[in-house]
Amino acid sequence: MKIYKKAILPKGFLANGVACGIKKSGKPDLALFYSAIPAQGACLFTRNKIQAAPLLLDKEHLKKSNYFQAIIVNSGNANCFTGKAGLKDAGETAQAAADFLGINKESVLVNSTGIIGRRLPVEKIKKAIPHLAEELSARGIDKAKIAIMTTDTFAKEISVKLNIGKAEVTLCGIAKGAGMIAPNMATMFGFIFTDAAITQPALKKALESSVEKSFNCITVDGCMSTNDTVAILANGAARNPVIGDKKSFSLFLKALDLVCLELAKMIIKDAEGASKFIRITVEGAGSFQEARQAALSIANSALFKTAMHGQNPNFGRIVAALGASPAAVREEDIRIKAGALNKKEIDLVVGIGKGKACATVYTSDLTPEYVKINAEYN
Amino acid sequence: MKIYKKAILPKGFLANGVACGIKKSGKPDLALFYSAIPAQGACLFTRNKIQAAPLLLDKEHLKKSNYFQAIIVNSGNANCFTGKAGLKDAGETAQAAADFLGINKESVLVNSTGIIGRRLPVEKIKKAIPHLAEELSARGIDKAKIAIMTTDTFAKEISVKLNIGKAEVTLCGIAKGAGMIAPNMATMFGFIFTDAAITQPALKKALESSVEKSFNCITVDGCMSTNDTVAILANGAARNPVIGDKKSFSLFLKALDLVCLELAKMIIKDAEGASKFIRITVEGAGSFQEARQAALSIANSALFKTAMHGQNPNFGRIVAALGASPAAVREEDIRIKAGALNKKEIDLVVGIGKGKACATVYTSDLTPEYVKINAEYN
Repeated sequence: MKIYKKAILPKGFLANGVACGIKKSGKPDLALFYSAIPAQGACLFTRNKIQAAPLLLDKEHLKKSNYFQAIIVNSGNANCFTGKAGLKDAGETAQAAADFLGINKESVLVNSTGIIGRRLPVEKIKKAIPHLAEELSARGIDKAKIAIMTTDTFAKEISVKLNIGKAEVTLCGIAKGAGMIAPNMATMFGFIFTDAAITQPALKKALESSVEKSFNCITVDGCMSTNDTVAILANGAARNPVIGDKKSFSLFLKALDLVCLELAKMIIKDAEGASKFIRITVEGAGSFQEARQAALSIANSALFKTAMHGQNPNFGRIVAALGASPAAVREEDIRIKAGALNKKEIDLVVGIGKGKACATVYTSDLTPEYVKINAEYN
Repeated sequence: MKIYKKAILPKGFLANGVACGIKKSGKPDLALFYSAIPAQGACLFTRNKIQAAPLLLDKEHLKKSNYFQAIIVNSGNANCFTGKAGLKDAGETAQAAADFLGINKESVLVNSTGIIGRRLPVEKIKKAIPHLAEELSARGIDKAKIAIMTTDTFAKEISVKLNIGKAEVTLCGIAKGAGMIAPNMATMFGFIFTDAAITQPALKKALESSVEKSFNCITVDGCMSTNDTVAILANGAARNPVIGDKKSFSLFLKALDLVCLELAKMIIKDAEGASKFIRITVEGAGSFQEARQAALSIANSALFKTAMHGQNPNFGRIVAALGASPAAVREEDIRIKAGALNKKEIDLVVGIGKGKACATVYTSDLTPEYVKINAEYN
């Protein structure tokens, strides 16, 4: 398995990104991803009960078919809490992209991120689509990865190449997200493209498994978004033996795990206002779920996060957060080991002495800059 | 019912506060409350699974009897996560106070607040008890209310006088708390003293009812403490007809509701680093519990709190927080009304269009000052 710290689109994929005028700053805000051949698709969405219009549209499309050829993504406007008008706008976006690309509307996925509660300026998007689609290219991923960003300060990207049978398979992942990050599937955007040939059940199973230990193990502020989406498209252009059996599945899963975890960690490294990257491992739990709950309770504690910002060894706050979590903890079983607090990366290992399961969660510190960014964002 | 915005101890109660040296600053850190006659007592404690040593001790005492004559409280050290040594220290504190006052150890309640995970300097407390107890007085409540504070910037106090039968009954409440405030019983200290004669079941029922809509409806940072306690002592010195029947109970409850709610609101007004006092009412819920869950989900959202700090009408964050709450909400049913965001007090009313129940929750904004205070507190 070869790892590249940049986005390298697999065979048969093209992308592009432009500024269509949604963002007042004039920064890029519209991205298009395209597969020349229909690709198997699998998606996971936020579990927030309020779901943005594009997610409702994508779910309709997923009901009709699992094959997709395009994802169109705008930043600067979440198209959420926009009612029927929002759903219509998302539908028109998909239709406009489909028309220009000469494909079915149902083979287009739509995603939006940005401010909640404002009507999507769909005319701007429609006007930009011809230019956006005409200049699709393999290197256009470098424009697309920028166009999906909101408060991100750097693009999140990674690629992996591995052999399956005699074929070289590529996975390419990009992500956005810096705030409103809490784990309950999937807390941001992650788009993963692969030329692997893989069955639909195997693709879905792999995505669910990888997301559980990556995007669902990160938190910036405990705030669950309305627009989170992780989507994977697999177009089979690598012509590998179709993945489905145990051995090739585990190879593919290992690569996908790496892509998802690296992207998830990049999101935390870019967390709004953060000055620390904190890795919290809870060991000795009864199950992975329990370990993750305990770790997230610490990770989401404002008092823990401010202590980390102050490089303050106030470990009582870890104990208080553990006791407030759903995990069954007892004072006498708790063991805390922490790395140097004055480093940019902090490692915390908390034993709860019950069982053998563990989970690692990634988070950031809470800083005056986080408050400033989010007091002003509008 | 007459309301006084200061602590006026009812008949038969005395108090005092001194600096015994737990706080490095030399500020008062030890308080004693005393009833000349045994008083009915009822207590509610934090639901955190990690409970401080004094709470474990108090629970033992409550098992033995419901009559109490003293509460001894220190600030500056929570005596939590201190194991068997901590329990021994709490017991020695109770014993030393009991010995000096000539009462049983079991009729003393002990409370501690401050840093978690450090051994209580019990010798300092024992050394201070004679002086503390010798100068007990009715006006000593003004020293006691200061000695229970940690990061509080002002004392929380209120008194109510009402007639029950022909007797005048007084309720006097004091509280402390400014951070690590989240509702899950009781999120701080509240001590309430009354000279009412009341049965034990009526006292307990009244306390549970009042706390549910006051101390359990406030949040500063969503962090559940390990030491929260609300205690009420009723010594019967007012010689009113014993409260137990419907009419006198509802009079007493109304007074207790007022005391608890006013103290709870004072805690939010003193919330660490806060610049806003925010009242969130959720209406149209299926039950009080559901309304409170929805309101707390908004109140605990870091993004909502920072938006309020920035006087930023980013109401999408309210929608996202509602959708993340356990309440069953649907986009089309949500209605949001907000008062002027540039005021110090902000009113928010959120309709969820389901049923007839409502709940009001009180919270503060999230500010750079909160981060600063908690980055440094140790």
